Amino acid sequence: MLPAILSDRLAHVPASPIRKLAPYANEAKKQGVHVYHLNIGDPDIKTSEVMLEVLRTWNKNPIAYSQSQGEPAFIDAINWYYHECGYPFITQKNIQVTTGGSEAISMALFSVANAGDEVIVFEPLYANYNSYAAINQVQFVSIETMISNGFHLPKRNEIVKKITKKTKAIFICTPNNPTGTVYTKREMDMLVAIVKAHGLFLLSDEVYREFVYDGTKHVSLLSYMQEIPEQAIVLDSLSKRYSLCGARLGMLVSLNTVLMQGVLRIAQGRLSSGLVDQLMASKLTKTPKSYLEGIQKEYEKRRNILYEGLKHIPGVTIPKPEGAFYTIVGLPVRDAEDFAKYLLTTFRDENETVMVAPASGFYATPGKGKNEIRIAYVLNVDALKRSMEILKKALVCYGSR
Amino acid sequence: MLPAILSDRLAHVPASPIRKLAPYANEAKKQGVHVYHLNIGDPDIKTSEVMLEVLRTWNKNPIAYSQSQGEPAFIDAINWYYHECGYPFITQKNIQVTTGGSEAISMALFSVANAGDEVIVFEPLYANYNSYAAINQVQFVSIETMISNGFHLPKRNEIVKKITKKTKAIFICTPNNPTGTVYTKREMDMLVAIVKAHGLFLLSDEVYREFVYDGTKHVSLLSYMQEIPEQAIVLDSLSKRYSLCGARLGMLVSLNTVLMQGVLRIAQGRLSSGLVDQLMASKLTKTPKSYLEGIQKEYEKRRNILYEGLKHIPGVTIPKPEGAFYTIVGLPVRDAEDFAKYLLTTFRDENETVMVAPASGFYATPGKGKNEIRIAYVLNVDALKRSMEILKKALVCYGSR
Repeated sequence: MLPAILSDRLAHVPASPIRKLAPYANEAKKQGVHVYHLNIGDPDIKTSEVMLEVLRTWNKNPIAYSQSQGEPAFIDAINWYYHECGYPFITQKNIQVTTGGSEAISMALFSVANAGDEVIVFEPLYANYNSYAAINQVQFVSIETMISNGFHLPKRNEIVKKITKKTKAIFICTPNNPTGTVYTKREMDMLVAIVKAHGLFLLSDEVYREFVYDGTKHVSLLSYMQEIPEQAIVLDSLSKRYSLCGARLGMLVSLNTVLMQGVLRIAQGRLSSGLVDQLMASKLTKTPKSYLEGIQKEYEKRRNILYEGLKHIPGVTIPKPEGAFYTIVGLPVRDAEDFAKYLLTTFRDENETVMVAPASGFYATPGKGKNEIRIAYVLNVDALKRSMEILKKALVCYGSR
Repeated sequence: MLPAILSDRLAHVPASPIRKLAPYANEAKKQGVHVYHLNIGDPDIKTSEVMLEVLRTWNKNPIAYSQSQGEPAFIDAINWYYHECGYPFITQKNIQVTTGGSEAISMALFSVANAGDEVIVFEPLYANYNSYAAINQVQFVSIETMISNGFHLPKRNEIVKKITKKTKAIFICTPNNPTGTVYTKREMDMLVAIVKAHGLFLLSDEVYREFVYDGTKHVSLLSYMQEIPEQAIVLDSLSKRYSLCGARLGMLVSLNTVLMQGVLRIAQGRLSSGLVDQLMASKLTKTPKSYLEGIQKEYEKRRNILYEGLKHIPGVTIPKPEGAFYTIVGLPVRDAEDFAKYLLTTFRDENETVMVAPASGFYATPGKGKNEIRIAYVLNVDALKRSMEILKKALVCYGSR
């Protein structure tokens, strides 16, 4: 009997740095310890009642396939949303519904690059991007951004010099997970100029579009879409915007007709996204504007508490997060993963502790971000204050072991 | 300004032969014509009320991420189901919940083969398999099965001679979509012997496990799983079994620990399957056994009507379908796709017509199955009888144009 050998590429799919310490957290919880989760962007904000009402009054039977492009009522709702955002040129045929923003990213990488082709990204970057790159066998060429200037983009020539014959796209996330950076109009202008000059696609993950603070305005790739209709691809999701993480719904938006036909063929292969989730989410048109404004205000408040709480801790580096609900924090430790484990296995304050994500998994380059963590500020104000207090005490104890 | 070029691999993702004639069907419907859908396996059987009750009494808010392996209550329910089926050795850690059976197939192909590696399949095969092969850049090596012997497997040496250094797996579907064939114990024994001798994985899509007729017993790869624990991978879905097509839920089942760790990493990348769908479907444990038995009886009745209705039409070839709810039918036409279009665009009987799927899209080899169609018998008895009548009349009219 001969053994069967798994593919090499399976071994290259990375584990999630956000979830990999989960066994330690589960162990702590078993011991009765309360764990504040700063590691994962799973918001506590309530889903709007008008959406849940779709479940409570459900009368469709059977639960049949939806259409591969998306349930028509849901596509109409998304189309309406983009018009409300100020992009009336978007029509239903520019929208492909995806099973979570994750699928939109995976479809985009598959569509713009062949196996072995390169895509430029800026690190630190959302850890799961590395999974989609591995699954689609795309080579990320990463350009480092620095905590010292709030992770904003480097100068044009720093980006251009990374372009090779194999480069097919530049892939950004704004507002950024994990850094909280919101790219300025100047930065977006620069990226658009580069992709025009070099014949590249520009992929923009804008899942946190509404989450910008201090009165800043988000600059969307949508506002450049008519200028570079064949090259612009917007990746989006309802998970954070409407607190629908568990309803796996995202979208890929583009004016490129051949691309949209191609992603529809990919979508036909997996038949459809969930019918119940789509019909529930199509009520976004009935969700009052105050819902999104309330979320934005709540996160700005949390951002302030986090920032004030952290910046006074000795040795901690934190740029003021401009958007999303994440930030990368530099710690006065050598190995942030060891500190994260220490929090879960050893440190207790009144039988409570916090869970954070080591930032090294958010870099594409091995060895980078070793003394950094990513924090998701998705807890309510009181829990967040308490978490900062625990983190401060833990750093002292960790340093004096 | 330079143009950006889409990847070659996107162009190789095929369009769905099941859905590609949809524009013609939509046009007919706009004209007020009633179209009987024999093209797609979207059953009219009702989802069980105990599942819909989960929606109607929904009280979780927000709709948060589920776990990447699957929602624990749902994994427990699936585990229970496999125990009920007679496989008590299956435990929760052998189960990865997937977003539809589609995702399970895609994960399996990615995991057993590198890009360019070969997987042996038997044609005709479920058309979407070609999509997963294209997306995962796996080379299908297809072995033809014949309508004349009900699409059963060829002799061992016919299969073995297709094995090369690049062959990583044999991939089957039983009960078969699109042929309705149920592989016998002898055939399954042969496949297991081949993968043992040649160090291959054996992937078995058993979505239609309960749909077998004439008192035949389905022979599952699960019954060989302890014999070839590292090599057996079962791909499964709730879509047809519980009439939950629109709840995107499937599973990948294996005793291979390294494989299960790998697919969990892939699953972490896309975060989770839908929470609502999983909690709804976990009520399968409360769905009475009579539900599944009732479905089996209903489809056997439909199968009989279809078989009797078709076998007496002059020039039609139809093997008696043994399982699932599909069959490949040979027609007295040269180009079945042209006939399928004719049905939608030209032929009307009392303002009604039928939609069928041309079978050529179910072959991996171009040019094969040109005079065949796939029929899904998912309509109620009366609609099915009427469809057969329309098909018979249409063949006469088409032949005498």
